[in-house]
Amino acid sequence: MSKARYVTGLRAVEQLISTKPDDIRRIFAEYQTANPRVEAVIGIANRSGIEIQPANRARLQQMSGEARHQGIVAEVRRSTALDEAGLRSLVEARLQASDGSKLLLLMLDGVQDPHNLGACMRTADAAGVDAIIVPRHGAAGLGPTVSKVASGAAENLPFATVGNLVRVLGWLKDYGVTCIGTSDKGAAGLFDTDLDRPLVLVMGREETGLAKGIEGRCDELVNLPMQGSVASLNVSVATGVCLYEAVRQRH
Amino acid sequence: MSKARYVTGLRAVEQLISTKPDDIRRIFAEYQTANPRVEAVIGIANRSGIEIQPANRARLQQMSGEARHQGIVAEVRRSTALDEAGLRSLVEARLQASDGSKLLLLMLDGVQDPHNLGACMRTADAAGVDAIIVPRHGAAGLGPTVSKVASGAAENLPFATVGNLVRVLGWLKDYGVTCIGTSDKGAAGLFDTDLDRPLVLVMGREETGLAKGIEGRCDELVNLPMQGSVASLNVSVATGVCLYEAVRQRH
Repeated sequence: MSKARYVTGLRAVEQLISTKPDDIRRIFAEYQTANPRVEAVIGIANRSGIEIQPANRARLQQMSGEARHQGIVAEVRRSTALDEAGLRSLVEARLQASDGSKLLLLMLDGVQDPHNLGACMRTADAAGVDAIIVPRHGAAGLGPTVSKVASGAAENLPFATVGNLVRVLGWLKDYGVTCIGTSDKGAAGLFDTDLDRPLVLVMGREETGLAKGIEGRCDELVNLPMQGSVASLNVSVATGVCLYEAVRQRH
Repeated sequence: MSKARYVTGLRAVEQLISTKPDDIRRIFAEYQTANPRVEAVIGIANRSGIEIQPANRARLQQMSGEARHQGIVAEVRRSTALDEAGLRSLVEARLQASDGSKLLLLMLDGVQDPHNLGACMRTADAAGVDAIIVPRHGAAGLGPTVSKVASGAAENLPFATVGNLVRVLGWLKDYGVTCIGTSDKGAAGLFDTDLDRPLVLVMGREETGLAKGIEGRCDELVNLPMQGSVASLNVSVATGVCLYEAVRQRH
């Protein structure tokens, strides 16, 4: 993990909470402050689900360096965010590396629930995924809940937010990356599919699954065997089963 | 799924909510009732997280048969609950069946979060698990949240609540069932372990993992490969990965 970044002082922290609350990892505030503005900021942060940690002046000063902390410091998330160009650079660099054939990407086509996104990130990080790709609109984004559930993965795993998933699948294919989608309509079983090649695994949205346009772009659609009364697995569990099958085959 | 069971009328439903709320699958109540007692019961049920569904008089009468519904009917969960003796009978019967070597049990050693328990049940049902085993005390039990997250599995999958997990592992071994625990201290990798035999998979509690006494009773401890910054997987995801590795090997 890289060194933490801090934003220090009342006005700067207020500004950060109102404009980019998702960038805040936690807020350090002075014990039993007498300053009502600090109290007010803590109140707002609390309602936004941001973690508050009490700290003494020495600690706050250490985080603030030369700046005046005024009793409050925000720790800013190490950014793992990439745009489409950044993702492309990452993929290119990864494919040129000696183990480029092990490229493993996870694309989430519109996961709605921050708990599910966080759990997918945690699992993807554990399975050695190189980057997660999500759409810019119509899906859960990084935030305090995601970060908490992800257990550190949100600060570690490259997270690409892109305008158009279909376009990304297009250029990934040009690089020779195989696109595997999961679907109960999938003809092949997961365990009969070769996952030991440069790969993007595409998981659909809760309830509705993969969008038609995405499904049509996949090289293969695979299904997970379902034996009981339930129709599907939770998306984070299904993601875990698929990614770990890739881990097993590459093992 | 077996036929639904209904409890009908104000007093009976009130009684059920106060004594066995976990047994209620949902409550059907008359549209726009003028009866304040019905309103009060709906309020209490709402606060207990029980699903309320509006129904007209004809529908309520149909569910109630001869009984007077008074505007309210509770649908009772099909019981999948087993005690230790019931579990033993299930295991004996299963082992005597022609595919007895496929016995697959899931033991959860103290899972605390109802969402995790529900997700484990949904996954276990999909993976063809024969029964889930949980301790009577110190763990999440069946309830509306579990039932909702389990997506029908709670009404389908045998669910054994037992006083002493170690004792159960003892008699399972006497029946020739292999006990596999998951632990980051596990010497063998999951993918190098034979899961195609009569099996009980034991998953630990969130944060703390398997209890020492349970760990000592396992025939083998297996680990899941972890490649990123996170120390572990969510228990429902880890359960999915392990159960589906069993599915794959038996496939």
